[in-house]
Amino acid sequence: MDAVAALADRLPSGRVIADPDAMDAHSRDQTYAVPGEPLAVVLARDTSDVVTAVRWAAEHRVPIVPRGGGTGLAGGATATDGCLVLSLARMTAIRELAPADQLAVVEPGVITADLDRAAREHGLMYAPDPSSHEISTIGGNLATNAGGLRCVKYGVTRDSALGLEVVLADGRVIQTGGRTVKRVTGYDLTGLFVGSEGTLGVITSATVRLRPAPVGPPVTVLATFGSVSAAGAAAASIMGAGLRPSLLELIDRAMLRAIDDWRRIDLDTDTAAMIITQTDGPECPAEELLRHCEDAGADFAAMSTDEAEAAALLEIRRLAHPSAERLGNCLVEDVCVPRSRLPEMVGRVERAAERHGVTILTVAHAGDGNLHPVFIFERGLTEPPPDVQAAADEVFTAAIELGGTLTGEHGVGVLKRPWLDGELEPGVRDVQRQIKQALDPDGLMNPGKAI
Amino acid sequence: MDAVAALADRLPSGRVIADPDAMDAHSRDQTYAVPGEPLAVVLARDTSDVVTAVRWAAEHRVPIVPRGGGTGLAGGATATDGCLVLSLARMTAIRELAPADQLAVVEPGVITADLDRAAREHGLMYAPDPSSHEISTIGGNLATNAGGLRCVKYGVTRDSALGLEVVLADGRVIQTGGRTVKRVTGYDLTGLFVGSEGTLGVITSATVRLRPAPVGPPVTVLATFGSVSAAGAAAASIMGAGLRPSLLELIDRAMLRAIDDWRRIDLDTDTAAMIITQTDGPECPAEELLRHCEDAGADFAAMSTDEAEAAALLEIRRLAHPSAERLGNCLVEDVCVPRSRLPEMVGRVERAAERHGVTILTVAHAGDGNLHPVFIFERGLTEPPPDVQAAADEVFTAAIELGGTLTGEHGVGVLKRPWLDGELEPGVRDVQRQIKQALDPDGLMNPGKAI
Repeated sequence: MDAVAALADRLPSGRVIADPDAMDAHSRDQTYAVPGEPLAVVLARDTSDVVTAVRWAAEHRVPIVPRGGGTGLAGGATATDGCLVLSLARMTAIRELAPADQLAVVEPGVITADLDRAAREHGLMYAPDPSSHEISTIGGNLATNAGGLRCVKYGVTRDSALGLEVVLADGRVIQTGGRTVKRVTGYDLTGLFVGSEGTLGVITSATVRLRPAPVGPPVTVLATFGSVSAAGAAAASIMGAGLRPSLLELIDRAMLRAIDDWRRIDLDTDTAAMIITQTDGPECPAEELLRHCEDAGADFAAMSTDEAEAAALLEIRRLAHPSAERLGNCLVEDVCVPRSRLPEMVGRVERAAERHGVTILTVAHAGDGNLHPVFIFERGLTEPPPDVQAAADEVFTAAIELGGTLTGEHGVGVLKRPWLDGELEPGVRDVQRQIKQALDPDGLMNPGKAI
Repeated sequence: MDAVAALADRLPSGRVIADPDAMDAHSRDQTYAVPGEPLAVVLARDTSDVVTAVRWAAEHRVPIVPRGGGTGLAGGATATDGCLVLSLARMTAIRELAPADQLAVVEPGVITADLDRAAREHGLMYAPDPSSHEISTIGGNLATNAGGLRCVKYGVTRDSALGLEVVLADGRVIQTGGRTVKRVTGYDLTGLFVGSEGTLGVITSATVRLRPAPVGPPVTVLATFGSVSAAGAAAASIMGAGLRPSLLELIDRAMLRAIDDWRRIDLDTDTAAMIITQTDGPECPAEELLRHCEDAGADFAAMSTDEAEAAALLEIRRLAHPSAERLGNCLVEDVCVPRSRLPEMVGRVERAAERHGVTILTVAHAGDGNLHPVFIFERGLTEPPPDVQAAADEVFTAAIELGGTLTGEHGVGVLKRPWLDGELEPGVRDVQRQIKQALDPDGLMNPGKAI
């Protein structure tokens, strides 16, 4: 504890927490992953706090676990025994918002939706919108290369990252990328740090791309289907036709009921699956979205320009994860398959649930082929029981077989590491480890995560 | 030469060239950079040829210079003394085109425009279109993260790369990324290899994103201006308003005249600068593009839906580089600035030309803030004379001062390396070297280029 006292001495007062109860809230993410007990937590307020903490950790060979809003779904921000938790949640400044260049320079603790609201005041938007956007931070979004509802049209977080300020494992601060939309001087370090889950350095600032906000009100299409596969087919058909909706979500019956149980929703919860899709521009006519749903055999399909109604529908979608959490512990998968394979993939999820007799609730960013089957198991268990494990295995395996991936937008964290070898060749894992070794030779940056 | 004979023995017949005259055509790109004399050239036909060549080079400590169409503008594919030139130009198969998943799997020697044409047969397009698209290859485009005219709307080559097959420096073959539009399992190796100019490995196949081709015919707006700055202001105004044209090019008087001298064009070559912009969808009304040009003080502005006329205009734009080459040796800059700084940047280019009394012809992907000032100097010189060097320095410095970069889309190659320290911090250069060292410890992959 002398070392922790020395750290506290080097930082402005109030930055270090070492009380176990107080540290607990900074040790978990939104998963069942059981955290270790950190040595201390640093609540950084600026880049220099981060540099001090990282240098101290390097001197004392203490692993660092960086974190933002703690909304992760893969255990990437879970504390390990004896680590230093480095919270960026209090670095909340939007340092600059430059409408003429359609960019912002932000600190990692900025809440995603706050940045979007700030941009909207200038007719712009910050496109990436994970369902947790009201509580997740830009730093966490960058660390996991987060997706969201709008990325079917506007791309994932990496597509919005122009440059980063990063504190490296040895405490040096570098600035990658910059303020231009094109730049090819040397390797793409910005893209490399995005999605690296804090294992290569700590992001202390980001220059992010803003985009013109849509001009007109969105048009929303709601459709219900007699089977999840039919809903999946509607989504694949919309995307395959070259339409670019601004979001395209699928919710299955089990998930609809979980949401309805928590917040009474005025929707048909007897339907097998529902599609919510939206267009925000004339290049994607709502009538076309409707027609694809009808052609795929929708029981019911309607379009609406009522903005309040649309907002309510999206709110329902965003309640999926907390609704599922009310039912027990959740293993949240994040498989993503080539778009045309979505109908097959949802079928494979249904069969895994039946075969193993486990409860799976599914919501999907269907336009991207990205499914979140949520496996429910008994609260209090620290890992999924064998039947859930077996069903999860089966779903992962199916995704890989269909040309897909274990994780489309949540990251690997600790929870998905056991399955990495199923997706990545030994050579790819080697190269990832070589890069890690080059940038963090002592292995102190979020060890045991991501790769 | 025993070693070369051994290499020829290991490969199918006809793959190796060792005659100096025959090797010369495989030793240059489109710049004045003087090539060294290679030990041999391998004309690879498949991945196994590449593996054989890379393993042989590793055994004999021979540097490898990979190349595609040889259309580079920075000397990235220039042979060095005693190297093995590894040409991928004969790996021309489109291995797969999957319309339902809007992707293609292609070999590196596929000509960029050929892939686009193949995609169009399915209502899709391959978006990146460097001006050299009829002669450049996908492999070269990936190596430099090439841009082009359409990237103002559709992004650069990296934005279209979903996955790569790469032969590493030790001859291992890895597959990065895959067939999904979202994927966050570990570090983004695809993005890292794209733009690495052959210094980390040799790309032998790529899974690339195709996009829905625009449905209607494009509408083209042509406008002329009394000053280059006014044309730059029109471009900045269009982008600042949130419009997304499918291309937005600027050509100055000197470049227009160079084109006109070569191919008689029916355009006003007395104008100070011309804007050619195009929209391919209803979300960007041509009337708005026209209005921004008029508001920025265009002498003349008109719109047209005549597709032949539009194609002729784009052909004129694509002739810029070969037209300039007729005047002498060309130092082609590729500076890119934040979009709002474009008017200032073009002013700085004009002043540099005046101050140093050198001829600069400018064309710009104006919507991206990406300028190509082409400095003309005496044919036969192997490097720019001092006045051109000084003017080029001044333009590079101005770009950095305005928050820009040395290179938006051409790459660093050998010709821009002397200026790297002006843009990149020592820490960034260190990290790039650490990654290079990790992946290519013997330094055999295109040494002396890019970083």
